[in-house]
Amino acid sequence: MDTPKGFLFSVAAAGIKKPGRNDMALILSEQEALAQALFTTNRVKAAPVKLDMLRMRHGTARAVVVNSGNANACNGPAGMQDAMETSTLLAEGLNIPENKILVSSTGVIGVPLPMDRIRKGVSMLVENLGKATLEDVAKAIMTTDTFHKMGSRKIKIGRQEGIIAGICKGAGMIEPRMATLLCYFVTDIAIEKAALKESFAHCIDGTFNHITVDGDTSTNDTALILANGAAQNEPIARKTKEYEHFVDALAELSYELSRMVVQDGEGATKVIVVEIEGARNDRDAKKFAMSVAKSPLVKTAVYGNDPNVGRIMAALGYAGAYMEESRVDVYVGKVKVIEGGIATGKTDEAASQMRSKEVLIRADMKIGKSSARVLTCDLTEGYIKINAEYTT
Amino acid sequence: MDTPKGFLFSVAAAGIKKPGRNDMALILSEQEALAQALFTTNRVKAAPVKLDMLRMRHGTARAVVVNSGNANACNGPAGMQDAMETSTLLAEGLNIPENKILVSSTGVIGVPLPMDRIRKGVSMLVENLGKATLEDVAKAIMTTDTFHKMGSRKIKIGRQEGIIAGICKGAGMIEPRMATLLCYFVTDIAIEKAALKESFAHCIDGTFNHITVDGDTSTNDTALILANGAAQNEPIARKTKEYEHFVDALAELSYELSRMVVQDGEGATKVIVVEIEGARNDRDAKKFAMSVAKSPLVKTAVYGNDPNVGRIMAALGYAGAYMEESRVDVYVGKVKVIEGGIATGKTDEAASQMRSKEVLIRADMKIGKSSARVLTCDLTEGYIKINAEYTT
Repeated sequence: MDTPKGFLFSVAAAGIKKPGRNDMALILSEQEALAQALFTTNRVKAAPVKLDMLRMRHGTARAVVVNSGNANACNGPAGMQDAMETSTLLAEGLNIPENKILVSSTGVIGVPLPMDRIRKGVSMLVENLGKATLEDVAKAIMTTDTFHKMGSRKIKIGRQEGIIAGICKGAGMIEPRMATLLCYFVTDIAIEKAALKESFAHCIDGTFNHITVDGDTSTNDTALILANGAAQNEPIARKTKEYEHFVDALAELSYELSRMVVQDGEGATKVIVVEIEGARNDRDAKKFAMSVAKSPLVKTAVYGNDPNVGRIMAALGYAGAYMEESRVDVYVGKVKVIEGGIATGKTDEAASQMRSKEVLIRADMKIGKSSARVLTCDLTEGYIKINAEYTT
Repeated sequence: MDTPKGFLFSVAAAGIKKPGRNDMALILSEQEALAQALFTTNRVKAAPVKLDMLRMRHGTARAVVVNSGNANACNGPAGMQDAMETSTLLAEGLNIPENKILVSSTGVIGVPLPMDRIRKGVSMLVENLGKATLEDVAKAIMTTDTFHKMGSRKIKIGRQEGIIAGICKGAGMIEPRMATLLCYFVTDIAIEKAALKESFAHCIDGTFNHITVDGDTSTNDTALILANGAAQNEPIARKTKEYEHFVDALAELSYELSRMVVQDGEGATKVIVVEIEGARNDRDAKKFAMSVAKSPLVKTAVYGNDPNVGRIMAALGYAGAYMEESRVDVYVGKVKVIEGGIATGKTDEAASQMRSKEVLIRADMKIGKSSARVLTCDLTEGYIKINAEYTT
């Protein structure tokens, strides 16, 4: 993986959940970086999210410190104090302004942060600065993830070359809305503030806001991009060719990372891609796609290679969007399983399409021109096992 | 179970799914009965639902014929023809007007009705008329149900005594909206048309419309009441004491039956009762209750006796209703697990409350006076197993 210039990384094993496993991480930009962030729209927000929302008013940042193993949510004023103390200690250790530090937490909700361990962890992060890679950071922020998620894109901006790298974590409590799980992008590409804001919102909405694992929107969702300009290109402005390149690269990378999240969905064995076309408008298209992607009956059918395609029609029907039953065509992979609202009976062919690691479910509503794509995963005994035993 | 006067029942083993198991049933009123019905709001509707919606314009009926093992949904014009042929044959066999016959189907979606077997089944139903009980009917309409669901209430109306009896089926694809799964009430109590309509809508909305197993709204949901007046009481009018008695009895019975559905939820080991109070309005209260009741993370936590109460707060937070995090109190059974938005840390006590067969989750939003109650069940490996292998 390529890493952009001007960023330093650090990880530490603070023993927050299990001893000996890295569970704190730091991303530091050598210079002040432009920052854009999107946060959970859950009305219950973790303390670090509330703190970061205040700090993001500046639109710039130097560092983000993350712990896994504890979400620091539903901890009241004490939770906010703990999040602030974490950033105060780090500001002192790194000798940077405290209000340029962002804090993220992920893990169990409603348990106080173990501050003795966090304090020790912050010291270690300062001590280890520069000794870790972005990949180490991606590993340190994992919770129920079974693999770490990262990617990068190199793009030419005029005569300079710049890099966008991204990491994220997440496997359960996943249905990001207007925001996402924990997801960090770092880039050395110089870009104007308005251009960064617009491109980031666009890319996240089209990718992380279109995935679901279990329909549960987290209290801690955070997507952040830091752009420090170390590539020394002419800052990218909106409506330029360079801007288009930047958006394309960021959107691709963001899609790649969001796909990894559903691929690693708790207990998942398959990725399910739900594509809707021919809907009346974008809102309806997303409603149809989400309804199919969230249906436990569709997800278990895909898991069991069970060509019970009526479940797809039922999920379209209760999506709360406008449709005409007699127009709808549905495909599983390449097989047309519903034509004009009527089952075609191609169950063996559909079952065989379901045996793939990535299953495409496509519906053409034939009443308009809007489309949407939502990614999800199958629902298996593994999901139950993981979540019936998470804290205990 | 008490059975109202003036109804005859019949069942038949037509071999629709498995041989030797009763899979067709008939309820016949000796006289024309007042009828009220509520149907699925899914935009994809099974053929028998479409047929019944037309026939219910009369507001009276003589009979309802049900088959399990096949939903007759997504079968296009052929499905409608099959539903009509079923009722034509039955009308001939019983010598009653065809438009007084209602048809219901339940089972797999998108597979043509095996009409040769249905025709044979209708003959058997006619032949067996009066040889079966309402309990036999309740058994014949089961699909993935593990027990049959029925109940009755006897009430005094003036000097007469009348009976309301009800049966229903359903274990999966359950989140009724404005309607319900398959649910039939029969009563010999005479009641005015407007009174029957109002009381039935009220009772179903407060019970069957407040349960969820998997969030999947079926294409076949039907709730029907037949009132044939055989008890010969003065017909009940609205706003009378008798009306109140009738509504109380019907609401109680309807709650009892709806609770059996979640108790028998696919793979379920426990009933979860979610009670919300102090919400801004009724809509918000139901949104909060449904959000908690539908959360796979809450449902798996209850299954595993895992006191991961932050998941309840997260589900309240993304319900899409107005709340203030710092006001919310949450209880698991008798144990206060969240106070003013902050976890109380009573995890052992909460875990022990979860070990019961019926787990109460109660949240006081403290911003208004509206309340709601939703019933659901836990989510287990059993649900996955049943639904990954349903048609195959």
